[in-house]
Amino acid sequence: MLHNPNRVYVFDTTLRDGEQVPGCQLTTPEKIEIARELEALGVDIIEAGFPVSSPGDFQSVVEISKAVKEPTVCALTRAHKGDIDAAAEALQYAKHPRIHTGIGASDMHIKHKFNSTREEILARGVDAVKYAKKFVEDVEFYAEDAGRADIEFLARMIEAVIAAGATVVNIPDTNGYCLPDTYGSKIRFLKENVKNIDQAIISVHCHNDLGLATANSVAGLQNGARQFEGTINGIGERAGNTSIEEVVMILKTHQQLNLHTNIRTQSIYELSRIISTQMRMPVQPNKAIVGSNAFAHSSGIHQDGFLKNRENYEIIRPEDVGVPSASIVLTARSGRHALNFHLDRLGHRLEKPELDIAYKSFLVLADNKLNINDDDLLSLVVPRMVK
Amino acid sequence: MLHNPNRVYVFDTTLRDGEQVPGCQLTTPEKIEIARELEALGVDIIEAGFPVSSPGDFQSVVEISKAVKEPTVCALTRAHKGDIDAAAEALQYAKHPRIHTGIGASDMHIKHKFNSTREEILARGVDAVKYAKKFVEDVEFYAEDAGRADIEFLARMIEAVIAAGATVVNIPDTNGYCLPDTYGSKIRFLKENVKNIDQAIISVHCHNDLGLATANSVAGLQNGARQFEGTINGIGERAGNTSIEEVVMILKTHQQLNLHTNIRTQSIYELSRIISTQMRMPVQPNKAIVGSNAFAHSSGIHQDGFLKNRENYEIIRPEDVGVPSASIVLTARSGRHALNFHLDRLGHRLEKPELDIAYKSFLVLADNKLNINDDDLLSLVVPRMVK
Repeated sequence: MLHNPNRVYVFDTTLRDGEQVPGCQLTTPEKIEIARELEALGVDIIEAGFPVSSPGDFQSVVEISKAVKEPTVCALTRAHKGDIDAAAEALQYAKHPRIHTGIGASDMHIKHKFNSTREEILARGVDAVKYAKKFVEDVEFYAEDAGRADIEFLARMIEAVIAAGATVVNIPDTNGYCLPDTYGSKIRFLKENVKNIDQAIISVHCHNDLGLATANSVAGLQNGARQFEGTINGIGERAGNTSIEEVVMILKTHQQLNLHTNIRTQSIYELSRIISTQMRMPVQPNKAIVGSNAFAHSSGIHQDGFLKNRENYEIIRPEDVGVPSASIVLTARSGRHALNFHLDRLGHRLEKPELDIAYKSFLVLADNKLNINDDDLLSLVVPRMVK
Repeated sequence: MLHNPNRVYVFDTTLRDGEQVPGCQLTTPEKIEIARELEALGVDIIEAGFPVSSPGDFQSVVEISKAVKEPTVCALTRAHKGDIDAAAEALQYAKHPRIHTGIGASDMHIKHKFNSTREEILARGVDAVKYAKKFVEDVEFYAEDAGRADIEFLARMIEAVIAAGATVVNIPDTNGYCLPDTYGSKIRFLKENVKNIDQAIISVHCHNDLGLATANSVAGLQNGARQFEGTINGIGERAGNTSIEEVVMILKTHQQLNLHTNIRTQSIYELSRIISTQMRMPVQPNKAIVGSNAFAHSSGIHQDGFLKNRENYEIIRPEDVGVPSASIVLTARSGRHALNFHLDRLGHRLEKPELDIAYKSFLVLADNKLNINDDDLLSLVVPRMVK
């Protein structure tokens, strides 16, 4: 099934796990537009919706199936025949359809949510995969709350659903509970102990409740997973899902991992803006990769180093994610080098004594004014230049 | 020096590394107010500023030193006598003063920023620590860009500055480059190979350029560090610093790590709002721990499980961070249980056939309306109740 062992598949669930966030709902035409953008970005799988959940969601899966060609289109179901029937029907126009079915795997979910037993739940999972296989070849199974599941039972469940035909097995950390080392170990355990694991791709699906979704996803990939599930900007219920842009740029930056996606990273920033606007979910300025400050250098120590050599403080080139260029912002914490950089840009080349005087005036100004603009800078030097 | 081997010290740099972000500048009175809030939260160290950088920053360190009693007040310097003189003077009123000095440790910084050699840089670091010790007992040394430094050289540098009197050694991942496993290994290496390491506390200071600051900090603590440096809401240059609230709640949630802070977690949410407002840095809704959606459950599958047992989907109780209670929000993805929960809350207990009819109407409504309010809900059931 996997031709290139270093290829990581990117599964986007912005339109499903992201879209179910309060206030983020999209119309079907808006979803089609975003699906086309995701296709242009190069995601491998688009989870388009949960067809049985509402007529609007059903229709969106139908229309997205018609709209995109390259990516697999995936529809979510519970381990119910009715859900799977709806998903299969909604996916009828997809070039590459996938049904994503599953059931809770942790004892907490088995007992308190399903009021059932491990054996019964395992059988229901297997039946759901077999039923989905009647409609499509590509069936992904999710073991909900796998992060808190008993690992031996989880391994047994995964082996059984692969035997039933699952092509992808998703090990979600549904509650965002795991630490990277333990989540990585779980994936490693499955990779080493599930006999038929090579017949399927292991997928990681992490939530960000403790701020660890990205780290957990990467730990999973380092330990044998070859698909990760996430959303643009990390949107999703509660603290959100794994940010696709973060994992993609980690793999690109850390070449030594030898893991590669097909994402056209130069399109990341623009799509981030589109998603934020259309789904009414602001991105904080200090968001990694796509925040408005992500490439802004402001402190004196950093600016000085940055101006001497970009690599001192820049591990990603802004152009690589579609941000025009890194910016140097002047504040009371900026040093002489940064001031000089901007004065030079404005056409004023100062000798050291002149720069020292300008810098003193600059500090007084910067302590009293939040944003230093070009006019402010010129007010510092023009009097000195005519003197 | 460390009395309790499981105690983790929280070093807040909101007022230094956070405050240097463009647009986040505070007046001295605002900084004093925030410093008092940080004291109430229970942070161990407040980095109050970089005194030599500007007269305003100097004055803020003076006033914060006077304003707080419990926490250590720390001032940043480069490895320059002038910087250290300014820091010592600014800290003169502090009950527990600390000078934070240091220099670049990576070859990238040594060559391109300092145009120097390893030996010369090491000597400058040692001299800075010795000079700072003339003024204060508590001296923290930072090895800038340690994340990319040669590990053998880093160990030699750390050993030398501890011998010179450093009480805390800070191993920053200045560029947010490291992966959790490699960053954890670096800390482990220092813990195991620096002969005098038990005479100092290892501190982790991470940046979030790849979305890994929290995970890297936790990996450091798991491998022997006992101080971590961060900011409230993760504000800071570029993609920001480690979010204090995330690391604190990870340690609280993962009791098996047996690592404890003195943070009064119930005050986290309120202080997050204060910082966001005063420093004009919005917190995105899907921010872990402190985002407005962090405890909101909206999808049908999740709501159903949540209503059956909170622990199915909630690993942190919102009250523990000062958020009043988890909310259930109705959308087109909500299930019958969630609808019933709200109708029940509004005083309408429906039997199953009635609920089925109300649910169908609800789905049509929810596909066309983003926010379902109580009036909308009543419109679904009141006609049925009078029938």
